[in-house]
Amino acid sequence: MRVAIVGATGAVGTEFLGILEERRFPVTSLSLFASERSAGRELEFRGSPVTVRALPDDGDLEADVVFSSAGGSLSRAHAQAWARHGAIVIDNTSAWRMDPDVPLVVPEANGDDALAHRGIIANPNCSTIIALVALAPLHRAFGLRRATVATYQAVSGAGMAGIDELRDLTRAALDGDPLRPRKFRHSIAFNLFSHDSDIGDDGYNVEERKLLLESRKILGLPELRISATCVRVPVFRAHSEAIHAEFEGPVSADAAREVLAAAPGIRVVDDRQRNTFPMPLDASGGDDVLVGRLREDTSLPGALALFVAGDQIRKGAALNAVQIAEHLIAQGALRAPVP
Amino acid sequence: MRVAIVGATGAVGTEFLGILEERRFPVTSLSLFASERSAGRELEFRGSPVTVRALPDDGDLEADVVFSSAGGSLSRAHAQAWARHGAIVIDNTSAWRMDPDVPLVVPEANGDDALAHRGIIANPNCSTIIALVALAPLHRAFGLRRATVATYQAVSGAGMAGIDELRDLTRAALDGDPLRPRKFRHSIAFNLFSHDSDIGDDGYNVEERKLLLESRKILGLPELRISATCVRVPVFRAHSEAIHAEFEGPVSADAAREVLAAAPGIRVVDDRQRNTFPMPLDASGGDDVLVGRLREDTSLPGALALFVAGDQIRKGAALNAVQIAEHLIAQGALRAPVP
Repeated sequence: MRVAIVGATGAVGTEFLGILEERRFPVTSLSLFASERSAGRELEFRGSPVTVRALPDDGDLEADVVFSSAGGSLSRAHAQAWARHGAIVIDNTSAWRMDPDVPLVVPEANGDDALAHRGIIANPNCSTIIALVALAPLHRAFGLRRATVATYQAVSGAGMAGIDELRDLTRAALDGDPLRPRKFRHSIAFNLFSHDSDIGDDGYNVEERKLLLESRKILGLPELRISATCVRVPVFRAHSEAIHAEFEGPVSADAAREVLAAAPGIRVVDDRQRNTFPMPLDASGGDDVLVGRLREDTSLPGALALFVAGDQIRKGAALNAVQIAEHLIAQGALRAPVP
Repeated sequence: MRVAIVGATGAVGTEFLGILEERRFPVTSLSLFASERSAGRELEFRGSPVTVRALPDDGDLEADVVFSSAGGSLSRAHAQAWARHGAIVIDNTSAWRMDPDVPLVVPEANGDDALAHRGIIANPNCSTIIALVALAPLHRAFGLRRATVATYQAVSGAGMAGIDELRDLTRAALDGDPLRPRKFRHSIAFNLFSHDSDIGDDGYNVEERKLLLESRKILGLPELRISATCVRVPVFRAHSEAIHAEFEGPVSADAAREVLAAAPGIRVVDDRQRNTFPMPLDASGGDDVLVGRLREDTSLPGALALFVAGDQIRKGAALNAVQIAEHLIAQGALRAPVP
C-alpha cells in the first residue's frame, strides 16, 4: 500500500509514523508532506530516513491512502484532487466532517459507514471520538437520548505549539519568570480556561458544537441532545471527559459496566477500593479509551454518570484514522493497485 | 474582639491572618494555635509577631470568636469545649456541617441561619461554597431543582502538602526525574484524577456527597437533586466548576446574567468576543466567585449551563468564615464582652 502523510511534521503527523510501524500497516511506500518550511527535514520510518517534501502542485500524491492532518483550509482546497488521483483520503481536519457526502467514522461506532466513501473519509474531532468510544456501545444497548459533557482537554489538541507552550510556561511559572502565552490567549501554566475556539451566538464554542453535531452524525441520531462545556487543562496529551448520560430506559451501573467491558477500544478502570479511575497520564501513549466512575446518577433515576480518558493524539486523531484504513482493508475496500 | 485561630500554620490558617488584617476585622487580641510540632513558630499580624501555641488542655481559648481549620477529628473533640468557654466557633472542617443543631452558612445564601447557632457555626466545603455563591441567587429568582456539576479542583484543598506536591512533582516531571507522590495516591503533575476522598457504595466520593448534602441544607431544599463528578487538577488554589442547572421554569441566559450581575460575591466574567471566562488564575487571591459561560442548555430547553471559579483558600474557606463572623457582628450577634 502506498501511504502518504500530509502534515507529517506536526504532533499528529509524527504519531502516524509510529502507529503505522507498530501496527505493521502494509506500507510499501511512504511519502511525507508538509509545508515548504518543513520540506527537506528527515523523519524515520522502520529505521530508515524519509525526506519530507512540499505538496506537489498537480495533486497527485502517488498514494493509495492519504492521512491528512495539515489543517482545515489546506484539506478543503486539496483533498478532492488527492482523491481524484486515486487515493482514499482519511482526513483529520474539520474540513469535511459535516459534508453529507463524506462519512464521519469512529470504527468502534460506525466502521461500515466508511465503505460508502467517495474518496474522502473524515476523522472526527478528538473529544467526539473519545466520548463516543464509550457512548456508542451504551447507545447500542440502551438507546442514548441526552448527554451533558464537561471536558478536561490536553494542550496537544493545539498541536506541537500547545505542547511547547505548556512546558515553557510551566517552567517560567515555577521559576517566577513572566508568563507570555503565544499559542493560547491565556496562560495554561497551573491554570485552565474555556476552549480556545470561536464562540457562537448561543454561547457555545466550536469545540462544543462539534461534540453535538458530529455525535449526531456518527450515531445516526439527528435528535440526540448534547450540551458540552469544553475546557483546556494543563495536561500534555490525553483528554478526559465527565459525562452524564440519559437513555430510553433506566440503566444500572452494573449493566453499563458489563456492556463497556465487552466493547472494543475500551479499558474499564473503575477501582473504588484503590481510588483508581481513568487518568490522562494512564491514557497517554495507549490505544484504549479508559472508562470509569460508573455511577447511577443520584440526581436523575435511570441515568448514568461516567468519566473517560483517551490519548488525544492517538485515538483522538492518528490511531482512529489508521483504524479506519484497517477497517477498509479488512472489508476488501482498500487495496494496493495491481502492478 | 478576642480572636483565636486553630490550625494557624496551615494553608487556610495563614490565610485567616491576611484576611482579618485586610478587612480590618475588629481584633483586640489574637491567639494562634496549632499542633505541638508547630508551637513556638511566629507568624506576623499587623506587623507584629504572634507566637503559635499548642492548644490548652482546659479548652479555654480566651476568645470571643474561634476560627478553626485544624481537621475534623480535632474539631469534633474540642469545639464544644471552646464554645462552653464563651467563644463562637466558626468551624472550617467537616465535623459539624451536617449536625442539625449547627448552622451551615454561606453568607450570600443563608447568612441569617448563622444567628440560630448554639456556639458552633459550620463553614461548608470549598466546592459547595463556590457553587452556591452562583446557584443561590439563581435559586431565589428561578427555583433550583437539579444540577449536574463537574469540578476542576485545586490542590490547595489538600492543604500545604498538596501545594508543595504539585510544585515538586511538576518540576520533577519537567526535569525527567521520577515522580513519587506522597500526599496524593497518583501524580498530579500534568495529570488529573478523581477526588482523593473515600468512595461509597453508590460510587460517589465524599466530596461529591458533600456537594449534594450541604447544598440541600444551605438552600433549605431537602429534595434538591445534585450529581457531581469531583476531579483534582494541577492548579494551585482556585476551584472551577462546570454546572448544568434546571429550574422550576425556563430560564434565559439574559435573565440569569441579570440576576448574577446584581448578586453579592460574584463577578460576571463572560466575554465571548475575547474568549475570556472564569479561570482559576484570575480567581486566585480574590474575594469574588467568577461566573461565566452563561448559556441556555442546548440539550434541555429552559435549563442553564455556566462555569464558575473561586479561590479555594479564601472564599472556599477562610474568607467565608470571616464573612460569617462579620454577618454576626452586623446583626449585633457577636460582640466583645464588656470588660
